[in-house]
Amino acid sequence: MMLWTVKAVGLGVVALALSLELLAWFLRRHRSGRTLNEVLFFPSELACVEQVFNTSSPHFPSSCSPSCPLPHGVETSFSRLLRRILSATSSLDLCVFSFSNMDLRRAVLALQSKGVTIRVLTDKEYAAITGSQIGVLRKAGICVRCDTASVYMHHKFAVVDSRLLITGSLNWTLTAVQSNKENILITEEPELVQPFIQEFHRLWVDNDPARHRYRASEPR
Amino acid sequence: MMLWTVKAVGLGVVALALSLELLAWFLRRHRSGRTLNEVLFFPSELACVEQVFNTSSPHFPSSCSPSCPLPHGVETSFSRLLRRILSATSSLDLCVFSFSNMDLRRAVLALQSKGVTIRVLTDKEYAAITGSQIGVLRKAGICVRCDTASVYMHHKFAVVDSRLLITGSLNWTLTAVQSNKENILITEEPELVQPFIQEFHRLWVDNDPARHRYRASEPR
Repeated sequence: MMLWTVKAVGLGVVALALSLELLAWFLRRHRSGRTLNEVLFFPSELACVEQVFNTSSPHFPSSCSPSCPLPHGVETSFSRLLRRILSATSSLDLCVFSFSNMDLRRAVLALQSKGVTIRVLTDKEYAAITGSQIGVLRKAGICVRCDTASVYMHHKFAVVDSRLLITGSLNWTLTAVQSNKENILITEEPELVQPFIQEFHRLWVDNDPARHRYRASEPR
Repeated sequence: MMLWTVKAVGLGVVALALSLELLAWFLRRHRSGRTLNEVLFFPSELACVEQVFNTSSPHFPSSCSPSCPLPHGVETSFSRLLRRILSATSSLDLCVFSFSNMDLRRAVLALQSKGVTIRVLTDKEYAAITGSQIGVLRKAGICVRCDTASVYMHHKFAVVDSRLLITGSLNWTLTAVQSNKENILITEEPELVQPFIQEFHRLWVDNDPARHRYRASEPR
């Protein structure tokens, strides 16, 4: 009888401990697994972004002069966007209609110098307009492909480390950042990120120049 | 001793039952509260969208002729987009740079005829270009405001029933739907929807013509 009592008490205590532990684990997992979701609106306040570059790449040369007239230490929509882009550690897939913003160009080059694999897909016409930075990226050795099969390759999205989606209305231009009403949506939600990864892959393969050369030599 | 044993065992069993119940409730809640997330890519396949209008408003006059040459009964990116817009039952807040697409105009007018409250915020220049449907919406009695404080009001988003966000690179034009590479992201995730609701409210208030008239008569 005594032995049975000890067993029952032990069982009760173990069951209580186990179920509480299970519940705590589940709650922890649910909380730590919370998906990143962020929305940024533009025009962005004007502020010096030197600190953003220095934080992410301490060895990147600073170009902020002591007489820099912009506000410092201010977090803006643009500095947040830059931080998200500069957070890349393995890859950046960029699919953007128009790319002329010098700070964004600097961010992409900073990532390249850190060894991040960068692929840029852009619009064939807008790649060649005055002020476009696509030529600079190409000269720096970044692989760029131009979409040839549509009126406009009008996307404005980036996928960081095959995990984080940055998308919205904002082209990578100075006007978009400083003068337009624009939005940027940033998410790690797989249901939203995965389709963009697949679309990038599809467009990247479709616009492989080797494929087009082969096609051109095919009999009609 | 016996009484104490019974109490301990009882407590263990009750705790086990309670925590399992709590866990089941948490799992149920987590599963049933699954947020809608959808991504659409364009150009859309060409297909007749008459069915989409007929499903959502059975009394809306059908304009599909027996000789309609388009494929029928095909679900496309555009028909999915139309369905999401037509799902509005109380409100549609539309914030779009360029609006010339006749099917999208028809969708907005169909919602208005169902009593859905519609507010349209658009770009001052693009509201007046050839083919723009903004004038038609205004004449139909829909409240339209033009953004005056930026180079471009470049947003392309809609909020359905203060619950569903439709956003992306796609302007509400025929070229965007049929000829461009574009994306539309649809989500009910409150962390993503709420900022857009707030931004719409902010821009709507900022661009109240009454406010501008008042401002103009203010002493400098």
